[in-house]
Amino acid sequence: MNDLRVAIRKFTEDRDWQQFHSPKNLAMALSVEVAEIVEHFQWLTEEQSRDLPPQKLAEVREEIGDVMIYLVELADKLGIDPIEAAKAKVEINGQKYPTDLVKGKASKYTEYR
Amino acid sequence: MNDLRVAIRKFTEDRDWQQFHSPKNLAMALSVEVAEIVEHFQWLTEEQSRDLPPQKLAEVREEIGDVMIYLVELADKLGIDPIEAAKAKVEINGQKYPTDLVKGKASKYTEYR
Amino acid sequence: MNDLRVAIRKFTEDRDWQQFHSPKNLAMALSVEVAEIVEHFQWLTEEQSRDLPPQKLAEVREEIGDVMIYLVELADKLGIDPIEAAKAKVEINGQKYPTDLVKGKASKYTEYR
Amino acid sequence: MNDLRVAIRKFTEDRDWQQFHSPKNLAMALSVEVAEIVEHFQWLTEEQSRDLPPQKLAEVREEIGDVMIYLVELADKLGIDPIEAAKAKVEINGQKYPTDLVKGKASKYTEYR
Repeated sequence: MNDLRVAIRKFTEDRDWQQFHSPKNLAMALSVEVAEIVEHFQWLTEEQSRDLPPQKLAEVREEIGDVMIYLVELADKLGIDPIEAAKAKVEINGQKYPTDLVKGKASKYTEYR
Repeated sequence: MNDLRVAIRKFTEDRDWQQFHSPKNLAMALSVEVAEIVEHFQWLTEEQSRDLPPQKLAEVREEIGDVMIYLVELADKLGIDPIEAAKAKVEINGQKYPTDLVKGKASKYTEYR
Repeated sequence: MNDLRVAIRKFTEDRDWQQFHSPKNLAMALSVEVAEIVEHFQWLTEEQSRDLPPQKLAEVREEIGDVMIYLVELADKLGIDPIEAAKAKVEINGQKYPTDLVKGKASKYTEYR
Repeated sequence: MNDLRVAIRKFTEDRDWQQFHSPKNLAMALSVEVAEIVEHFQWLTEEQSRDLPPQKLAEVREEIGDVMIYLVELADKLGIDPIEAAKAKVEINGQKYPTDLVKGKASKYTEYR
């Protein structure tokens, strides 16, 4: 993770792009890259999405890479470690959705959100 | 990262939610969580987004955690390591946007995309 | 449509919110409201999404209203009529996806994009 | 609006695409098209977004057309008129954000959401 953070900083600085990379703009770029993942899945059935052909999987891998880059860069700008933030959120979600209440229920799941 | 992956798997399995967590659905959930980050920035100036008050920063940190959780889970379902995918993409982007052509230019930047 | 445009202008001006409603910010707000539609569908099967219970349908109707508001306002700021823009795009799409090549094919559909 | 609705129905039926156009999938497609609007604005300042060059404006017009198409089609599938839904929502928002409390305030605006 630290190597990745350093590589992203160098990439941005080498191109003098910090001026464009405000947290506001990075949040927008993040949403655009996520949509490129969604685009791959929009007309597939759930079944098909569980079993992608190799070429499509390779394309989705690139999009996941792009989302990760912007997420790490946004978090870095805000002084946040995304892995630590995720671990903390798994704990919070664990209390928010108690196993005995939501087990196997999508409707409950939705309502609890 | 591996600890996080394991924690997310456990969280999902304990609630019997794998049935809902197809890659298609996870891509949708990822886009919804990213929008919750965007929501924090939508009416701020770029300047304000660089200097969030502590309460707002704590909220954004939670949303970054949620995005990271769904990104790691989606990647895990597809057999992808998001950090490796991001490192590979930084290399690709480095060749796609040569320093001497795009340095300090947002317009070029956009056109090159 | 014209009544709607006028009502939105009045709403924004009465609150002195034109200062925040740049096209950039309206595009962000539009994406946030669309995510609120997506949120309603993320854990449903396609079948379930075709047959929403009345309460959920009423909620989705409100979200569609919000998306329409921001879309009309963004278009208005740019001097665009969204209905005319959509009609023109249906024509373009008609030529882009010739009936005989794409009929009944989701894969072609995706590739053609 | 009715002409547009009819043209979209014909476009979809001619290609036998109703099978792919579940409300769930249309919500995904809508979010993908909105991201293509956001992409045009992500590296612009708010000032620049208020004054687009003609070529970019023409591209944004096409994206607005695409968003409108999917919004009208999704609403049509659910038996909703998007203009009526938007008018009803302007009324609701008018009560939710009282003029005297939120006038000229982005922070209040955000908190009220």
